Amino acid sequence: MSATLSNQVSQEKILTGDRATGQLHLGHYVGSLQQRVQLQHQYHQTILVADMQGLTDNGHNPKKVSSNILNVVADYLAVGIDPALTTICLQSAIPALAELSMFYSNLVSISRLERNPTVKNEIKSKDFGRSIPAGFLTYPISQAADITAFNATLIPVGDDQLPMIEQTNEIVRKLNSIANKPILKECKPLLSPVSRLPSTDGKNKMSKSMGNAILLSATEREIKQAVRAMYTDPGHLQIEDPGKVEGNVVFTYLDAFYPDKVYVEELKAQYRAGGLGDGKTKAILESCLQELIQPIRQRREKLMSDKGQLVEVLKTGTERAKDETGDVLNRVKNAFGLKLF
Amino acid sequence: MSATLSNQVSQEKILTGDRATGQLHLGHYVGSLQQRVQLQHQYHQTILVADMQGLTDNGHNPKKVSSNILNVVADYLAVGIDPALTTICLQSAIPALAELSMFYSNLVSISRLERNPTVKNEIKSKDFGRSIPAGFLTYPISQAADITAFNATLIPVGDDQLPMIEQTNEIVRKLNSIANKPILKECKPLLSPVSRLPSTDGKNKMSKSMGNAILLSATEREIKQAVRAMYTDPGHLQIEDPGKVEGNVVFTYLDAFYPDKVYVEELKAQYRAGGLGDGKTKAILESCLQELIQPIRQRREKLMSDKGQLVEVLKTGTERAKDETGDVLNRVKNAFGLKLF
Repeated sequence: MSATLSNQVSQEKILTGDRATGQLHLGHYVGSLQQRVQLQHQYHQTILVADMQGLTDNGHNPKKVSSNILNVVADYLAVGIDPALTTICLQSAIPALAELSMFYSNLVSISRLERNPTVKNEIKSKDFGRSIPAGFLTYPISQAADITAFNATLIPVGDDQLPMIEQTNEIVRKLNSIANKPILKECKPLLSPVSRLPSTDGKNKMSKSMGNAILLSATEREIKQAVRAMYTDPGHLQIEDPGKVEGNVVFTYLDAFYPDKVYVEELKAQYRAGGLGDGKTKAILESCLQELIQPIRQRREKLMSDKGQLVEVLKTGTERAKDETGDVLNRVKNAFGLKLF
Repeated sequence: MSATLSNQVSQEKILTGDRATGQLHLGHYVGSLQQRVQLQHQYHQTILVADMQGLTDNGHNPKKVSSNILNVVADYLAVGIDPALTTICLQSAIPALAELSMFYSNLVSISRLERNPTVKNEIKSKDFGRSIPAGFLTYPISQAADITAFNATLIPVGDDQLPMIEQTNEIVRKLNSIANKPILKECKPLLSPVSRLPSTDGKNKMSKSMGNAILLSATEREIKQAVRAMYTDPGHLQIEDPGKVEGNVVFTYLDAFYPDKVYVEELKAQYRAGGLGDGKTKAILESCLQELIQPIRQRREKLMSDKGQLVEVLKTGTERAKDETGDVLNRVKNAFGLKLF
């Protein structure tokens, strides 16, 4: 609120989160987790364990969500997200998020939702057709509720999620127009500095169920196997042959994880010229990933051995989140003239 | 729970309510209010002042809702609904209703909602087209949340609302199947004993804005004018002419409100035969309605002169409702495996 704020914490608030539908993997690590560990020192950061959003396409298979909530919390803590700096909270346990969603759903038309490019693509890829659950079509409204409930102004996203930011800001402007004063803040995207990490087979989005992702809980053996099976250059049959670096997942992972970037460039040059085998590049990558994941895995194991403690972390963050979001809900209720008591 | 329940109160629970988009009128009086006054002695009855549902087609005009909440509460009390017997509560102030709606929305497809005949008709009559607000298309889900949140098993409805009961029971069955035990109760309709009262012009649905409804707050003069302007038989030009009773709004109202049914039948016979003028029938109806409305209007005026008291009634009922609905929410959260703390 003043220029003398300690630790130079920015006034911008960050909201981010994950659908609790699986353990987190290396894609999350480079795409968001690393960034969050840094951002928590500069910003008021909230991470939502999005169990409700996870249910929007798992309503009939809720175990997929419920069994992963503590996994995701353990992943957060294991990579260094600090609950003293970052509010880690559970979406379904914060009533204001549902209440705001109900208010906002009166301000967004069905056709507007159907035009949302992100949702359009997801509907196509999930093969919903007309059987799309209402909760899935309307989840951009629920995201707007999440963002505004925390007064968040900076939203870490991939560029495929920019339509979500636009939808949120449309709702913010409508609300402010109804209230006749700026009760909600518009948000802006914080684009991820790295592009999406490919799956180990180079084909699909990473997913635990497809077996093409390296989880943060991966064992030594799982890491070894995943790297060994990694997609490289199918035309690179003999060590002497020149090989392609583009689309070669081993090099993409080396780019993402190997600390010495100069060395990676040297490897690429050698691979392109011929004379560098996949066995060698994979060995380099594997040892790098083993070194990265080992301490995370160990911290994670310890965390998962005391689930009561994980629940406590989530509960404490959620209590804090309930306090914060109640204030925005009251402002929205006032805008609609419904705060009678 | 046992056969020795005091006062022979049924174990069936009733949920009913009104969209808070206008003052209540004689149509509500015969269609639901009278019935509620009786039912409150036999049943555990909850009346929801449905401000959130009112917003589903008034999101950009929330005053239409907010300005009518206390009006509706005053109408209830003025006709004899007793807050000691009936829980009168405010929909937007009960978080569990929004939270349950979010859970249920993952179990209902968009195409199922679009097939709902009641919603279909309303979309047509409101001329929404594709600009239908998400909250409006999904309001049957929200109604299912309302009904189940209160464990309601008897729902007073007109026959045009039977699809709402069916939609609710579909959700109940899905939930019970997910929970693998009967955590929610199916409900059944309690059909209104009287058919819908026509508007005074005999043309449309009664509505304050169309000036074709007699409000429970109508002044002596307003009642007189409304009855004088009432639609009768346009072919009945002279007193001596035979007149038509069917579609003659004056007789429909006499049927609905005049206590002496035998006398009304005599009047009908005379009107059909010729020799009974509209002036006479209207005078009889007017005096009957003046007598009915006068004490309601007086109680209503007194109630509206102390809005703090009305807020208090609503607040007390809402607190009770919050206690009741929290239990069902917990059961649903448990079914989804999300009750972590």
